[in-house]
Amino acid sequence: MRRKVTLLYFLFVLSACTDKTNQNTKMVNTPEELETAIKKAQAGDNIVMANGIWKDLQIKFIGEGTEDNPIVIKAETPGKVIIEGVSDLKLGGKYLVVKGLHFRNGYSPSDAVLEFRIDEKTIGNHCTVTNCVIEDFNKMQRDDTDLWVQFWGRHNTLSNSYIAGKTNRGPTIRVDLEGNESINNHHQIIKNHFGPRPPKGGASAETIQIGNSYTSMSPSYTKVANNLFEACNGEVEIISSKANFNEFRNNVFYKSEGSLVTRHGNYCTIDGNYFIGDGKNENIGGIRIINTGHWVTNNYFYNIKGKNFRSALAVMNGIPKSPLNRYNQVTDVVVAYNTYINCDSPFQFGVGQNLNQQDVLPPSEIRSARPIRTIIANNVIYNEKGDASPIVEHDKADGVSFKSNAINNQGLDFKANDGLEAINFDIKEIEEYIYIPSSKLDIEPYQGFEFENISTDLVGNPRAHNNSIGAFTYTDFKDPNIMDRSQYGPSWYMAETAVQEPKTEIVEKAENLQTKIDEAENGDIISLEAGNYDIPHSLIINKKLTIQSSDKSKVILNYSGVENSPLFQLQPKGFLNLKNIDLKGSNSQFAFASLKKNMYTHFGLTVSNCDISNFKYVLKVYKESFAERITFVNTSISNCENGLELSEETNDKGDYNTEYLTIDHCRFHNVKSNVIDYYRGGYDESTIGGNLLVTNSTFTNCGSEKRNGILINSHGIVNVDISKNTFNNNPVKLVALLWGAKNNTHGNNEFNNSGEIRVEENLEMKLMY
Amino acid sequence: MRRKVTLLYFLFVLSACTDKTNQNTKMVNTPEELETAIKKAQAGDNIVMANGIWKDLQIKFIGEGTEDNPIVIKAETPGKVIIEGVSDLKLGGKYLVVKGLHFRNGYSPSDAVLEFRIDEKTIGNHCTVTNCVIEDFNKMQRDDTDLWVQFWGRHNTLSNSYIAGKTNRGPTIRVDLEGNESINNHHQIIKNHFGPRPPKGGASAETIQIGNSYTSMSPSYTKVANNLFEACNGEVEIISSKANFNEFRNNVFYKSEGSLVTRHGNYCTIDGNYFIGDGKNENIGGIRIINTGHWVTNNYFYNIKGKNFRSALAVMNGIPKSPLNRYNQVTDVVVAYNTYINCDSPFQFGVGQNLNQQDVLPPSEIRSARPIRTIIANNVIYNEKGDASPIVEHDKADGVSFKSNAINNQGLDFKANDGLEAINFDIKEIEEYIYIPSSKLDIEPYQGFEFENISTDLVGNPRAHNNSIGAFTYTDFKDPNIMDRSQYGPSWYMAETAVQEPKTEIVEKAENLQTKIDEAENGDIISLEAGNYDIPHSLIINKKLTIQSSDKSKVILNYSGVENSPLFQLQPKGFLNLKNIDLKGSNSQFAFASLKKNMYTHFGLTVSNCDISNFKYVLKVYKESFAERITFVNTSISNCENGLELSEETNDKGDYNTEYLTIDHCRFHNVKSNVIDYYRGGYDESTIGGNLLVTNSTFTNCGSEKRNGILINSHGIVNVDISKNTFNNNPVKLVALLWGAKNNTHGNNEFNNSGEIRVEENLEMKLMY
Repeated sequence: MRRKVTLLYFLFVLSACTDKTNQNTKMVNTPEELETAIKKAQAGDNIVMANGIWKDLQIKFIGEGTEDNPIVIKAETPGKVIIEGVSDLKLGGKYLVVKGLHFRNGYSPSDAVLEFRIDEKTIGNHCTVTNCVIEDFNKMQRDDTDLWVQFWGRHNTLSNSYIAGKTNRGPTIRVDLEGNESINNHHQIIKNHFGPRPPKGGASAETIQIGNSYTSMSPSYTKVANNLFEACNGEVEIISSKANFNEFRNNVFYKSEGSLVTRHGNYCTIDGNYFIGDGKNENIGGIRIINTGHWVTNNYFYNIKGKNFRSALAVMNGIPKSPLNRYNQVTDVVVAYNTYINCDSPFQFGVGQNLNQQDVLPPSEIRSARPIRTIIANNVIYNEKGDASPIVEHDKADGVSFKSNAINNQGLDFKANDGLEAINFDIKEIEEYIYIPSSKLDIEPYQGFEFENISTDLVGNPRAHNNSIGAFTYTDFKDPNIMDRSQYGPSWYMAETAVQEPKTEIVEKAENLQTKIDEAENGDIISLEAGNYDIPHSLIINKKLTIQSSDKSKVILNYSGVENSPLFQLQPKGFLNLKNIDLKGSNSQFAFASLKKNMYTHFGLTVSNCDISNFKYVLKVYKESFAERITFVNTSISNCENGLELSEETNDKGDYNTEYLTIDHCRFHNVKSNVIDYYRGGYDESTIGGNLLVTNSTFTNCGSEKRNGILINSHGIVNVDISKNTFNNNPVKLVALLWGAKNNTHGNNEFNNSGEIRVEENLEMKLMY
Repeated sequence: MRRKVTLLYFLFVLSACTDKTNQNTKMVNTPEELETAIKKAQAGDNIVMANGIWKDLQIKFIGEGTEDNPIVIKAETPGKVIIEGVSDLKLGGKYLVVKGLHFRNGYSPSDAVLEFRIDEKTIGNHCTVTNCVIEDFNKMQRDDTDLWVQFWGRHNTLSNSYIAGKTNRGPTIRVDLEGNESINNHHQIIKNHFGPRPPKGGASAETIQIGNSYTSMSPSYTKVANNLFEACNGEVEIISSKANFNEFRNNVFYKSEGSLVTRHGNYCTIDGNYFIGDGKNENIGGIRIINTGHWVTNNYFYNIKGKNFRSALAVMNGIPKSPLNRYNQVTDVVVAYNTYINCDSPFQFGVGQNLNQQDVLPPSEIRSARPIRTIIANNVIYNEKGDASPIVEHDKADGVSFKSNAINNQGLDFKANDGLEAINFDIKEIEEYIYIPSSKLDIEPYQGFEFENISTDLVGNPRAHNNSIGAFTYTDFKDPNIMDRSQYGPSWYMAETAVQEPKTEIVEKAENLQTKIDEAENGDIISLEAGNYDIPHSLIINKKLTIQSSDKSKVILNYSGVENSPLFQLQPKGFLNLKNIDLKGSNSQFAFASLKKNMYTHFGLTVSNCDISNFKYVLKVYKESFAERITFVNTSISNCENGLELSEETNDKGDYNTEYLTIDHCRFHNVKSNVIDYYRGGYDESTIGGNLLVTNSTFTNCGSEKRNGILINSHGIVNVDISKNTFNNNPVKLVALLWGAKNNTHGNNEFNNSGEIRVEENLEMKLMY
């Protein structure tokens, strides 16, 4: 016995010594010092970046650490090392760690802000980036594609970081699998806080994409776990899994517009995640399933109102013998032990079925292959208000077996199904958003093939002793505390900033206006005294501002700027709320316009109670500019050459310029050419924007010079509603040409000498894939 | 110490007792007894089938054995239990073993002779079939599809069995992966002897198929190891791997017409196999690669003369964004440490490139995607005679890296390539077919990513200490003895039977002829004395026979059978060699015909030095009949309504009626309608048959009633050679219409008042997929 103790002691001392070998801490203050320190670094070394702002910094972190002695680059104080300007960080080698950096106010000169390789030959393995922030680090143009984090190699980790605000093209994070060096990667994306990613207005805006269709046959084994996804609204896919054997565990999807999608690849595990909706927003989805062998278990869905592609569980139809980059059939999928609280029609099958499109699409685009060998078992549905269709069959779900599922539908009848039993049970609140049945449900769980592997429930309780259907085995357990944000992201960063009380500045003279705008803080109000203001130059809007007339007094801005210049130039981050102000041009300028270039992030515009007249364009939105919302209310637009023009996204890659264009209670009079032009091109079945609402408005004597003879152009826009409007004496062939196959509607319009609204079921669109 | 010994002893006794628990041996003599015994069987039981012939036996072997105590069904004496008639064997449950059975002279009533499941719910796991034989167990018609061994479930084994003679449609063995119960299967197909599988004349005649395109995304992990494949000539694919992670190790492919093909699925290991050709037969191939991530290492290729699809290493072009069931691009493949001795152009890339077919094929059939991220390293080529093109690029191999490959090309120049170095070295014979460099080659092996995992060479020697390029690390080692057949198949069965000396029987009278035919043994000779023989009924040929005139005396068979009956009826296993005999009909019968139905296996026909006249058909081959060879030499065919008709395979699934139709030095005179009709339908790029040779023959006054105006119809036949013939006064538009894109040639023909031979590059064919 004594010998053993001695030996242990000796080993301990030895290992302690080993730990200290090569331990070397080096403070660096300049990019050059950092570069030198990296070059000299050996296993176990720490390189400490001095606090402060580092500008235009391109870090190539190459080194060979060991598991016990990694090489570390860290901030002197976590969060106090700010990286701005044209900057990026690449890692190559092994056992490298980066901690505590804050990327902001800049963009990457390369294809990625943070990349786990230097080049094709120097790839990172066993590297970790943790406790960092990347925010608003957008390229200057929306179509300048990049990634913020690009994984290569194997066994790399991104953890406890905060990432938010990407608006340019490209997934926020992508795991790449090209090359044997990057398969079987076992990367970990854990405990991060993915903050808001606003809608991009088109495809390629996932928060995480793993692989692509060309490498979708490869084993990936990427783990995405314990992350918070908050308002990740970039596109229909929050996570797009395109490789095999990925795991998605215990993530919280909080009010995020989109779904977790197994887009390509097979045999993924989606276990123990929370999908929290707001009970209203139909863009907030759940899990969408394509391909083979996925297991969807122990997930919790609350207040999900998404439909079809965005339903809580959307199981798609595939294309028979699908091309590599399209939709494979769903086979061998298991959806078991999930709980759905107040979700609308949570189970949808044959999603994407488009047999009625056979006339306009080639056979290789027709999704007619229904799911097969798929099991839906041991799930629980609770509806506060009964749901007539908890199961929606877009195509027959004859390849799906339902076993031991239960629903409390408040007694409301629903389409009968053998494996979904109506039973009565109460629920109780465990914490905000989390409700569970108050007592164990009296349904014996179905024991499918390998169901014994679902050995624990959502909160980790073992199923062996007290198994019951639904995500939670026991009716009592510790709060999971899913919205405790301290669990996600960096220790030093709080995403939420205190809301400041807006200040109101009074302006009386035109010459003070731009100065006051420049001085204003985000969210402030500029109030104009009554009178006429001569504005000779564009007013630059690059923050959130309300500009209004004080006390509804009459204010007129007379714009005398040069031809084709805008009265209000809407720059990135420029959100203008204009109220009770009249705008007048001299027929050659624009009332509002985005920048022609470098709209590196979004703008926004709301106009209410304004009279706008004598402009060449009321609104001109240039290519690659995007606003989540553009709204005109109670506003008159008259005697203009053109009205609202958002039609430059003609690449036909699915992009468009605003998510919501809303016109309500407006009056258009004598707008000659383009009255409303809002364009999205490209056939992409999964894009579900934009949105055009034209209601309660009048159009008189408009469109006289409109070349295509359509007053309101909404080509390719998915959601259109034109109703309760009056069209008088507009010399056009059509008021609108609507796309019947999509969500285009109209009604209660009055037409006097003004053409008509025509609906075509299938518009011919350019195929995107 | 003493306590330990005691404990061990106790454990030993205990385990010995456990072994004997449930041990119970039951002899069964009838199907009913067998059924009862199976029903009663418990773990550890042995059921012994009594020696003898068991007819029409359908065994459903359901039971629950354990790893230590399987349930066993075995022959009283291995090989003495013969199963005949309409019989099959299905296993369901676990740890079941079947030993020593011999299936022959019958066929399965179901989809498989041996199947590792009873039905969808009762699947076999951990089951083993060993020491068995299945031979000539064909369904009655070629298109009656079945399998001889069908794998389902997991961890099942077929070992030490002999399987030969399948001629009907369907792979000999197939591993199925439909359903989660059958993925990750880890099946083992080991130490079997796969005897001759003759060419089927069309697709679906693999010896082993693992998965199918619809489950090709699934992980399989099937291991095919230490088997002998001998004359497995069924179709172009000996093994068709269509799932992920399969292993092919240490198999011997001996003079087998076809290749080991990674048809679908990815990440297979092909390690340590021997591919032995005969130095002549261009149908004997090697490894054909499609898809991603395969490792081809330590393989040995000898005397492989296959080209293109059948070259020693054929790396295919893919279809961009291929449909699921077509050709994916090759990516991330490693071909390392292989040795090629006397192989013609062993490295072929872009195989299947068909850009010149763009006019006749849809884009989804055009293989234009070249291999990428593919490494060819550390391989050795030795050519006794220099090869001008050791590397053939059907399309640019710009995505392939060549590293540290060596060639002894006997000084002959070849197209230079950076990674293939000409060096001088000798080889020495280790055993028949196995040659290795006499001394270590002076080339440092390339160390690619994960090459350290190729840790041993073909014969298991470690590479760590003495690594060198090529399949063999050391220049001295024990003979691998690959052709020692006792290593493969059952202990009790010898595939080779002693060749008997043929007997010759003399026949003088017509009425004795059928009797003598019936009495003859396989291979015997029947010799007819000179004279005229009146034959009123068809002569039945169901064995291998030579029928000849003795000493070239004049023999005439006058056939007076009924209309549409054949003089010689060629039944399954009927191989007729007819020499020096004249055949004469009365214009309404056939000279030779197969059966209309139930041609459950092949026939054959050779006719030499015969005069054939006054028949309605000289040869009529019915649908689903197949002969490997049909040959007419020095024979005259005259005054017949039709000549040789092999054109009933009109399903257009790639099938045809003979592999080789050879006409040499023959004379066709006054054959009115179909002179030679030989048909294959369906576009199938991987089928490379049939073969039509028409040489040194004359055709006079033929085709007067030929409806399509083509004298020699060879629609869809891949290899055609029409040369050195004379065509006189044949009133047809075309003598032949040849398919330029395939191997169709003609030359040195003489045409007098007889139409012409036209070549069309691309024939329009029905797509098979």
